[in-house]
Amino acid sequence: MNILVLGAGQLARMMALDGWVLELSLRAYDVGPKQVVDPLTKQIYPQSLNDAIAWADVITSEFEHIPYDVLETCEQSGKMYPDARAIKAGADRRLEKELLEQAQVANAPHLIVNDKIGFEQALTQLDLPLVLKSALAGYDGKGQWRLATLAEAEKLWPTLQAFLHDNPQQALIAEQMIPFDYEVSLVGARSHDGDIVSYPLALNHHHQGVLNLSIVDGSLPGALQQQAQQMFHAIAKQLNYVGVLAIEFFVVGERLLVNEIAPRVHNSGHWSQQGAFISQFDNHLRAVAGLPLGDTSLREPTAMVNILGEDTLDPAVYALPGCRVHWYGKDKRAGRKMGHINLSAPSREQLTEHITELARKLPAEQFPALHLYLQQD
Amino acid sequence: MNILVLGAGQLARMMALDGWVLELSLRAYDVGPKQVVDPLTKQIYPQSLNDAIAWADVITSEFEHIPYDVLETCEQSGKMYPDARAIKAGADRRLEKELLEQAQVANAPHLIVNDKIGFEQALTQLDLPLVLKSALAGYDGKGQWRLATLAEAEKLWPTLQAFLHDNPQQALIAEQMIPFDYEVSLVGARSHDGDIVSYPLALNHHHQGVLNLSIVDGSLPGALQQQAQQMFHAIAKQLNYVGVLAIEFFVVGERLLVNEIAPRVHNSGHWSQQGAFISQFDNHLRAVAGLPLGDTSLREPTAMVNILGEDTLDPAVYALPGCRVHWYGKDKRAGRKMGHINLSAPSREQLTEHITELARKLPAEQFPALHLYLQQD
Repeated sequence: MNILVLGAGQLARMMALDGWVLELSLRAYDVGPKQVVDPLTKQIYPQSLNDAIAWADVITSEFEHIPYDVLETCEQSGKMYPDARAIKAGADRRLEKELLEQAQVANAPHLIVNDKIGFEQALTQLDLPLVLKSALAGYDGKGQWRLATLAEAEKLWPTLQAFLHDNPQQALIAEQMIPFDYEVSLVGARSHDGDIVSYPLALNHHHQGVLNLSIVDGSLPGALQQQAQQMFHAIAKQLNYVGVLAIEFFVVGERLLVNEIAPRVHNSGHWSQQGAFISQFDNHLRAVAGLPLGDTSLREPTAMVNILGEDTLDPAVYALPGCRVHWYGKDKRAGRKMGHINLSAPSREQLTEHITELARKLPAEQFPALHLYLQQD
Repeated sequence: MNILVLGAGQLARMMALDGWVLELSLRAYDVGPKQVVDPLTKQIYPQSLNDAIAWADVITSEFEHIPYDVLETCEQSGKMYPDARAIKAGADRRLEKELLEQAQVANAPHLIVNDKIGFEQALTQLDLPLVLKSALAGYDGKGQWRLATLAEAEKLWPTLQAFLHDNPQQALIAEQMIPFDYEVSLVGARSHDGDIVSYPLALNHHHQGVLNLSIVDGSLPGALQQQAQQMFHAIAKQLNYVGVLAIEFFVVGERLLVNEIAPRVHNSGHWSQQGAFISQFDNHLRAVAGLPLGDTSLREPTAMVNILGEDTLDPAVYALPGCRVHWYGKDKRAGRKMGHINLSAPSREQLTEHITELARKLPAEQFPALHLYLQQD
C-alpha cells in the first residue's frame, strides 16, 4: 500500500521507519519547496503533488500547518485521513475552539478577538490573567502574549492591533489563564470502523513553550485517564477522525481542560516507541491503512527527553540501561528538535534513578526542564 | 557515517532501519547481481563495489556466503568488521571447526572427509549415528546427510563421492550426532575496544533444519548462560571479532557444545527488537561504527515466530497483546523467510498463553514448530 504524508519532518521519518516493517510504502510532500521526497533519504521524486496523489492509496499528514489549496486538492481525492476539517481544526484555534464546544469537552473560557471591541469584551467577560494566542500558525509557544492586569492591557493593545492589521486572515483567541497543576496529553488512534485505542496519559514538562520531557509511569489517577479517553472519544467522533490524534490537557485538581489538539502523531507520544509494543507511528499507519490497531498498553515506566539544538551527546548516554537515542538527521540549529532519548525502567523509582543518571550526562543549559524536574522531585 | 553491508536481504534491511535512528547511512552490496543498492528501497546506486568501498567508512556483512574475491577486495580497504577470517569461518565448516579447536570450545567429535579413506576413518573413529555436512554453502539443513548404521554407509558413499567429485572445492564434515536435549543460541556483540555484551540465550525450535520459533523467557539455567558467554568470549577473542556474532549450541545435560557460528546478526536474535532495549541490529551497527554498545538485558519473556512462505496473516494477529508483525518486503516463495512475529508477555505463563492464542490464528501447516511446541507443553 502506498501512503503519501503531507510534511517531510521527523514525524514522517519515524512513520516511514515503522512503515517498512508493515510493508507500507511512504512518500512525503514537503509543502515548502513543493516537492515529493523520500521521508528517510529526502531524495526528490520527479513528480507533482497530483502525481503523488494518484500514486497514493492513502494520504495523511505529519503536521497541521498545510496550505489550504494543498489540503483541498488532497481532500478531493477522497483518500485523506484524517480529513481536511480535522487538520484545519488543529491549525486554526478558532476552528479548534468551535470543535471543542461542539464535542462538549471542557476547555478554558475564551473569546475570539478580531478588533478593539472584541479585546474589551475579553477584558470584561473573562477573568485576568489572560493569554492571547494567534489563531493560526502558533506552536511551541510562538505568537502568544500574556496579560496579567488591566493596566497592561492598554500597553499591549497597540502590539495586538498591529498584529491583526498586518495579518488580516488572523484573529486572536483570548483565553483565561488556567492555574493548572500540571500538563498531560493523550495520544490515541481511531480506525475507519470507529475502533479506538489510546495510550496512557503522558505527563509533560515544557520549557519556554517547548516540550522537554514526557513521563509515562502509570502514576496518574485512573479517573484522569478515563476522563481523557471520554474527551478523546467525543472529539474523534465529532470529526469522524481516522488516524492518531493527540490532545493536550491542563490538569486542575481532578478535572481536565483541553488545552489544544494535534491531528497527528505528537512529540509527547514518542515514548511509545519504547514504552509500548506498537508505537504511535505504527498505530497511525495502521489506522489510515485499515490494518487492525495494535497494543497501546504501558510496558514499563518510560520517559522521553527532547534533544534541542544539539547534534552530539556524551557517548556514555548510549550505554545507559533502558536507554535509546533517536536522531532525526537534521542540521544543527539553536532550539531545533534534533532527536530524543527514550528511557525506561522496571519501576517508577528506578525510572527516576535512570533519569537522574541521564541528567548527569546532559548539560542543564541544553536540557533545562529535565534538571528542573529532578530538583522538584 | 557511511556503512556498506555485504548482502542485501532482510538482515541488511533491519540493520538499515536501526541505522536511520543512529544517523548512520547504509548501502548494501548484493553479491548476486553485483549491485550496490539501498537496503530498504532496493534502488540501485550507479556505482561499482570499489566506489562503494571508497564511499564507506566501515564495511560489514549480513551473511557469510560471500565470494572470496569480494571479501579480499573489502578486506584490503582496512574497513571491514568483522574481518574476512571471521566471515570465512562462518562459511566454511573446515575453518569453523579449526577455529573452535583453537578457541578450545567444546563441539561435536568430527573428522573432515575428502575421500573414501577419510570416510572410512570417520566410520571407525566416530560413534554412529553421524551427520555429514558439506563444508561450504550449507545452511538451513541443506547439504546434509544422516548415517545411522554401517550398512547405510555403503549405500550413501556413492552420493557423497559424487558430491565431492562434482565440487572439488568442497569437503564433508563427518560429525557425531549429538543426542541433545535442546538447541540454544547466544547473540552478542564485541566492540573495537574488546568490550562484549550478550543477550540472554534463546531456546530455538527448528523444523526440517529451519528455525521456526525462538523463545527467550529467562527460564534457562544461569550456568548455561555463563558457559555460553565464556565460549563467546573465547571465540570472539580468537577472531579479534568486531560486530554481532551468533553461536548456536546443543545442550546436553548441563553442558554446551557449539553447533555452529554465524559471524553476523542472526534469526534467533530477532526477538531482541522487542524483548530488549537495543536490538542485535542496533548493537551490530554500534560495534562496527565505534559507538558504545547498548543494553541487551531481557525486558520481558519474548518469543519470535518465523513467517515462512506466507505473505499474509489473519489480521487479528496484528491486534494481539504484546505482538508485532515484521515483514521483509519479499516476493512470496515456498519456505522463504518472509517476516517474523515478535510476541511478549509479563511472565512465562502469560507468554505461553499468548503463544497459544497466536497459534490459533496461524495454520499448523505453515507454522509446524509452533504447534509442536504447544503440544509438548
